[in-house]
Amino acid sequence: MNILIRDVSLLTPREGCGVEYFERCDIGMHDDRISFIKIKDDAGQETRESAELGQFDRQYNMDFIIDGRNKLAIPGLVNAHTHSAMTILRNYADDLPLKEWLFDKILPIENLLSDEDIYWGAKLAIAEMIMSGTTCFADMYMFMDMVAQAVAESGIKANLCRNPLKNPGNTVPVEHLGDTRYFEFYWKWNGQANGRIKVFVEVHSTYLYDERSLREASELARNFSTGIHIHLLETRDEIMQSYEQYGKNPVDVCLETGIFTVPVIAAHCVHLSDSDIEKIARCNVAVAHNPTSNLKLASGIARINDIMKKGINVCLGTDGTASNNNLNMFEEMHIASLIHKGASMDPLAVNAEAVFRMATTNGSKALGFDEAGILGKGKKADIVLLDKTGLHLRPFNNPLSALAYSYQASDVETVIVDGQILMQNREIKTIDVERTVYEVEKTAKKIGANYGN
Amino acid sequence: MNILIRDVSLLTPREGCGVEYFERCDIGMHDDRISFIKIKDDAGQETRESAELGQFDRQYNMDFIIDGRNKLAIPGLVNAHTHSAMTILRNYADDLPLKEWLFDKILPIENLLSDEDIYWGAKLAIAEMIMSGTTCFADMYMFMDMVAQAVAESGIKANLCRNPLKNPGNTVPVEHLGDTRYFEFYWKWNGQANGRIKVFVEVHSTYLYDERSLREASELARNFSTGIHIHLLETRDEIMQSYEQYGKNPVDVCLETGIFTVPVIAAHCVHLSDSDIEKIARCNVAVAHNPTSNLKLASGIARINDIMKKGINVCLGTDGTASNNNLNMFEEMHIASLIHKGASMDPLAVNAEAVFRMATTNGSKALGFDEAGILGKGKKADIVLLDKTGLHLRPFNNPLSALAYSYQASDVETVIVDGQILMQNREIKTIDVERTVYEVEKTAKKIGANYGN
Repeated sequence: MNILIRDVSLLTPREGCGVEYFERCDIGMHDDRISFIKIKDDAGQETRESAELGQFDRQYNMDFIIDGRNKLAIPGLVNAHTHSAMTILRNYADDLPLKEWLFDKILPIENLLSDEDIYWGAKLAIAEMIMSGTTCFADMYMFMDMVAQAVAESGIKANLCRNPLKNPGNTVPVEHLGDTRYFEFYWKWNGQANGRIKVFVEVHSTYLYDERSLREASELARNFSTGIHIHLLETRDEIMQSYEQYGKNPVDVCLETGIFTVPVIAAHCVHLSDSDIEKIARCNVAVAHNPTSNLKLASGIARINDIMKKGINVCLGTDGTASNNNLNMFEEMHIASLIHKGASMDPLAVNAEAVFRMATTNGSKALGFDEAGILGKGKKADIVLLDKTGLHLRPFNNPLSALAYSYQASDVETVIVDGQILMQNREIKTIDVERTVYEVEKTAKKIGANYGN
Repeated sequence: MNILIRDVSLLTPREGCGVEYFERCDIGMHDDRISFIKIKDDAGQETRESAELGQFDRQYNMDFIIDGRNKLAIPGLVNAHTHSAMTILRNYADDLPLKEWLFDKILPIENLLSDEDIYWGAKLAIAEMIMSGTTCFADMYMFMDMVAQAVAESGIKANLCRNPLKNPGNTVPVEHLGDTRYFEFYWKWNGQANGRIKVFVEVHSTYLYDERSLREASELARNFSTGIHIHLLETRDEIMQSYEQYGKNPVDVCLETGIFTVPVIAAHCVHLSDSDIEKIARCNVAVAHNPTSNLKLASGIARINDIMKKGINVCLGTDGTASNNNLNMFEEMHIASLIHKGASMDPLAVNAEAVFRMATTNGSKALGFDEAGILGKGKKADIVLLDKTGLHLRPFNNPLSALAYSYQASDVETVIVDGQILMQNREIKTIDVERTVYEVEKTAKKIGANYGN
């Protein structure tokens, strides 16, 4: 299918560094890729060609044309760390100490969830993500088959991870953890849905594993040439605990067990020391920064400025809705752009370009979807169209500042993934939203998460 | 005029402390006040009466009925510190050191603004505030007559302050600053627009005044029995500067010049010492917390938890759009609820109720509109209706958590101030939005704030 977005403004990170803005252009898509981007002048005439964006293509033979006037095209946003089906627990447990939150509220209620509950919870999350401009996410939770099914059906992209120790009905003994034959989830889902699903190995954290299983998990990832998604140094307690458990800190545990020999999404990384940062910078580790969750659970403020300075790939995530309490990447960009300035007393910390890159190209790279995250010829067509007319954006003085500091999720009008329109004019095409909400509300009532129950 | 909101959910702070939620009720308004609130059961029958909310009134003789189903009524939000017409400079100067931002970018361009520019800039701000659920704001800027006119026309409420030293064409000598006869802005506007406008005395800061003018300004406020709106300890530099200028710190300067003998809106208060907090707690000083601006300009993180513990009235503001870059009180609540947990490593800091109170009843009190800020019989009818159906709110497990952590400005559907509907179904009734945006965009281009100029 060929789609044309006509007369749209465009804001995209460049490869490497910098940001490019064009007031008016046409974006052509052929199947799942951007086939051309034509820059126009005020009168609508072709002007110059951006070297970045690719060659002109004058052949317009389009199946579908989107009017891009008063809209801003950006690359789809990438949510680099979440637990999607936790939507069920949204606003169920807040303003509590971490241990009470986790052990008294979240864990007991999670045990009540069935695979079908997870399916609908993930669907609701995906619908919310599409509505807020997210085209790709990294997920870690239970009953991941159901999440994969929801991803496949809805048209979004996802990096899904799975703990091979916990194949239901087929628990793998730890000594076989590294054996690719036992990792059914990978065989079943990696590369599925036209390549929209990538499978990583879940290593929840160093503290929930032991050294043997960490070694086996890293071997498994190496054997598949895939990556690992892990929680790392979310709380300060992890350091002490790691010394007790392993006699070394979590970063050294990862280094020595081979976790860092493969591409890693390391969620949180709030309590990295200088030496941890140096070590991580030498590996293929992306830091998935979750500012809202880290603040809300009082985990602390990650040293993102220092981490960025070492050239580490920093991407952005919402974490689950039980600790956020939404999946809004615009809010995440906004908060990421603010807290590091205030915490470091440096108004130059984590600028607008930095958060834009975190939420797009950096996230795409970290999740293994390198061909998205930038708008340019030949790239995957993961495009979000934002309304430019909201009062909270006017006057439209600077598009990049607007994106980081003023734009809201509600400005997302149209979402395209791999050249397929998932939402147009705020109407989701691929999910039965009403049914999804009905099912999740029912689950919340069933398990007692709902207010008054 | 009598308005009825039928079958609406209701969330309001109680007097003193606590929050009240009703799944289904009717809210009646007579002229500018709430005349009754009737609590209903699931079947729509009257049930009990909330002592807080006032007596039943069975006389329905309504001019206008709003369907409240799937909506949540909350008190209108109060933006306790802004510079409304700075909308013109939105996204014009970001990611800069404070001094460069202020002296090289903001101040030179502000000098180019005319009174008419301010009128349209304020109108745009008011439109944005209405759309995001704000019913009342405290403003400090130039050409305040134009702001007052915009407030009067638009139906919103405002606390407007003015520096009597700077009546254009009628500069008051400092020795007459305390003389009420010279403060024309007060005579012209205080109590106008059916009491929707209150006038405070502007004292920009201690550092832009001298001791004599501070004494005169406080005398002026006392003579009018009104209050003062001041910037206080926004940056750390102010402490040193104050010792150089006055030989004492800014809080002591305010105490000794009588500033704290009247009701005060003290914006920012980022760098209060323990002793400052003790002193402020003994006076009628409300702290207007501006978390976004303080973070964005790298001023620091105010000690809101400590300030609240001393019983000081903390309210919430956005500051101007040049340092935010929007006027979104939902975002402000969200950020206020998050940063203090993260900065203090205490997940119990500044909970959902606290930010809800800051943004409603606390702000109303600070700005001198004590009869608003809570929904109850006899209160001023400043009511915001929020959509309850957004995917980012589902399942609707806990209304208070949803308000603090999930709700977005775009969920605001209807806004009522003093019983007048200013916006219904996201259509503003009292402002020509198209003309306003046109005029502000023109101004931005004229003064060179617009991207590319």
